[in-house]
Amino acid sequence: MKKSQVTVGIIGFGTVGTGVARILLEKKDELKRRLGFPLVLSKIADIDIKKKRDIKLPKGILTNNANEILDDPEIDIVVELIGGVHPAKDFIIKAIKNGKHVVTANKALLATEGSNIFAIAKKNKIELGFEASVAGGIPIIKVVREALVGNRIKTVYGIINGTSNYILTKMTEEKVEFSQALKEAQALGYAEADPTFDVEGIDSAHKLAILASLSFGIPISFSKIYTEGITKITPLDIDFASELGYKIKLLAIAKQGNGEVELRVHPTMLPKEYLISNVDRVFNAVYIDADAVGASLYYGRGAGEMPTASAVMSDIADIARNITTGSVGRIQGIGMPEKPNVRIKHTDDIVSRYYFRFWAIDKPGVLSKIAGILGAHNISIESVIQKVRKKEKAVPLVMMTHEARERDVRAALKKIDKLPLVSGKATVIRVEAREE
Amino acid sequence: MKKSQVTVGIIGFGTVGTGVARILLEKKDELKRRLGFPLVLSKIADIDIKKKRDIKLPKGILTNNANEILDDPEIDIVVELIGGVHPAKDFIIKAIKNGKHVVTANKALLATEGSNIFAIAKKNKIELGFEASVAGGIPIIKVVREALVGNRIKTVYGIINGTSNYILTKMTEEKVEFSQALKEAQALGYAEADPTFDVEGIDSAHKLAILASLSFGIPISFSKIYTEGITKITPLDIDFASELGYKIKLLAIAKQGNGEVELRVHPTMLPKEYLISNVDRVFNAVYIDADAVGASLYYGRGAGEMPTASAVMSDIADIARNITTGSVGRIQGIGMPEKPNVRIKHTDDIVSRYYFRFWAIDKPGVLSKIAGILGAHNISIESVIQKVRKKEKAVPLVMMTHEARERDVRAALKKIDKLPLVSGKATVIRVEAREE
Repeated sequence: MKKSQVTVGIIGFGTVGTGVARILLEKKDELKRRLGFPLVLSKIADIDIKKKRDIKLPKGILTNNANEILDDPEIDIVVELIGGVHPAKDFIIKAIKNGKHVVTANKALLATEGSNIFAIAKKNKIELGFEASVAGGIPIIKVVREALVGNRIKTVYGIINGTSNYILTKMTEEKVEFSQALKEAQALGYAEADPTFDVEGIDSAHKLAILASLSFGIPISFSKIYTEGITKITPLDIDFASELGYKIKLLAIAKQGNGEVELRVHPTMLPKEYLISNVDRVFNAVYIDADAVGASLYYGRGAGEMPTASAVMSDIADIARNITTGSVGRIQGIGMPEKPNVRIKHTDDIVSRYYFRFWAIDKPGVLSKIAGILGAHNISIESVIQKVRKKEKAVPLVMMTHEARERDVRAALKKIDKLPLVSGKATVIRVEAREE
Repeated sequence: MKKSQVTVGIIGFGTVGTGVARILLEKKDELKRRLGFPLVLSKIADIDIKKKRDIKLPKGILTNNANEILDDPEIDIVVELIGGVHPAKDFIIKAIKNGKHVVTANKALLATEGSNIFAIAKKNKIELGFEASVAGGIPIIKVVREALVGNRIKTVYGIINGTSNYILTKMTEEKVEFSQALKEAQALGYAEADPTFDVEGIDSAHKLAILASLSFGIPISFSKIYTEGITKITPLDIDFASELGYKIKLLAIAKQGNGEVELRVHPTMLPKEYLISNVDRVFNAVYIDADAVGASLYYGRGAGEMPTASAVMSDIADIARNITTGSVGRIQGIGMPEKPNVRIKHTDDIVSRYYFRFWAIDKPGVLSKIAGILGAHNISIESVIQKVRKKEKAVPLVMMTHEARERDVRAALKKIDKLPLVSGKATVIRVEAREE
């Protein structure tokens, strides 16, 4: 059924909801010229409709009852911006069952319940836009699904959590500890009171699950992602990394090869000269290596009112165009995996270069002992740094390896950590050093 | 009229044509899964059908008569990849008039005759894809038209000519003269025997005309672009730039403000720490600053068989989806300017920071004389470098200015160039130093 105008309802009138309303209201005429038909914002629902927001709304548009949107036969597109799993999931499913198309920025929900939601949407011939769920203002979903349609993607990796990137940038520039950088990020509103999702890599893993599903045509595999956050990164390691020519970033990595996919989120050393190594503060970037297009990089703001609203707006426009031209479903969505049975590589089988830092007693023989254990586990050393000398005391001993298998690394470190000449546990940071 | 499969014909079987055929043939099954319907490559036309190409074609697909494609009622999409204005223009117009959708990578044609061609396409309800015409594999057309639909774009600038970027990278890394770097680029196939279009900035201006039209909703304005190439750049200026913290890139710049648009292509000094300053060799990048999304950057290969074919493929897929869903025309194209009467700023009115290099006789009073003339023309100096001292001999004198008006700069330099203490003409490089 073709329509000559498209009506939008927003559920969740927080930061991003306000941004979307701002665009729909303030750019009404421009959008109409660009799309060729009007977009009407008819209702906004939020629990708190009394809070002062810096935006002028048409009278009677605000409601504290989401059902007024979900049950409104005039509304074509429901924009879900409340976040979290409940009640967002119920709202989305109700919207779909009521024949409404949905736009959401809810990565936590899609990463954990996405397969089910996409299946329901497909069954009901409903479009589900989720551009804003990964890397905010960077149109990475559109790039992967549409622009790279003629490509086989080999590698996708990215800085897709602005909070951790801000913290790592602070730690690098000002040589402060994680805890202090976190406090500053919280003071500036870049980190939440409970920062777990951001600093433990969970938010990045949510986004990676969505991105990898699209990139490789696999089911959403959040629970299979190896996830490690940035809480153990120290200024000492950032310094050693710098001396070796690297920067440390929280990287979400997905690679495809030999019929297997590997998915991981962890602090990663990247050569300083890579473009992505220079993506600092709250900015995000996604690097893609694909067979036709080669290396490409997409950079922008990963969060915030207007950048995220820009992505939501792109989805609203796409779906609205499909509604007015009667072409709903013209792009096949996620949830239609090409390779439902692809194997996700076990973490033990991942191959990477590694940075190790040990606290080793400065005594003859310690280096050869450690090197011996590494060698016995097929790990070959590329370089060693031992600068401080304090006879008979523990000093940092840094090693960079050539490519090694995670399983071998764990076995070797278990032995090294037990050496009498080594105190505490080794610090391990994976290194990503492909040609960009 | 909806169709269940889409048939494609390619005119021009050179590098990119081969790449497109390769994707359509080798990824036939994948494309069908992704699109939900088959894409059929039925014919390829080229003057030279005997040349050996590294690709296996189905029998009878090759013809030396473009009309076999243009007149074939089975063909839905004609891909024009011969380049240049004639006969490409006639082929495209004939295709449109025969009701065929068109995909082209032909920036020279679109920049000079685009308004007419887009008008004919619109009148005939034909889609015209041109993603590959700007920045090759970077999906910048899609980003501007679709992903940023909710934005007002303020600034777009980019490195959109790989040949000049390769030459400037060589000059910077190896401290060689332009002529030698050009020879190396030619030997590697990155520059043509007649490199004029690339090194004089014309190719960049072609692309900028298309990009600015989309970004600002203005008519294609190639003839109004101030265009200056890289042939006068010397290792000396690259060195001084580096000392001042800058790199020199051939930048295509479009800005909008106060109801005016400025369009220019010229060598530009950019702060080393900008991401775009680190875009080297044949790579391209486009930076966009827009009101909602903020700063964003898109990086990738700007030319070459497969990257360009990737962009062509994206257009073919988009148009094919519209054909099969009956939604041809769902995205309004270029040639529908929102602001047909926007004023293109006269070059004289451009405001920029500047780098000047004079050959000045090393004698007391010369600096104050030059500074005096600049001051009288409202040009204030930010910093001065004069390192070499050779009494009574000409030595390089370098100045960086604060923001100044082009008109004032030209007037001042005219006077300075006539000073008896200054030999030859001043070297002028504009500086782009906004926050990225």
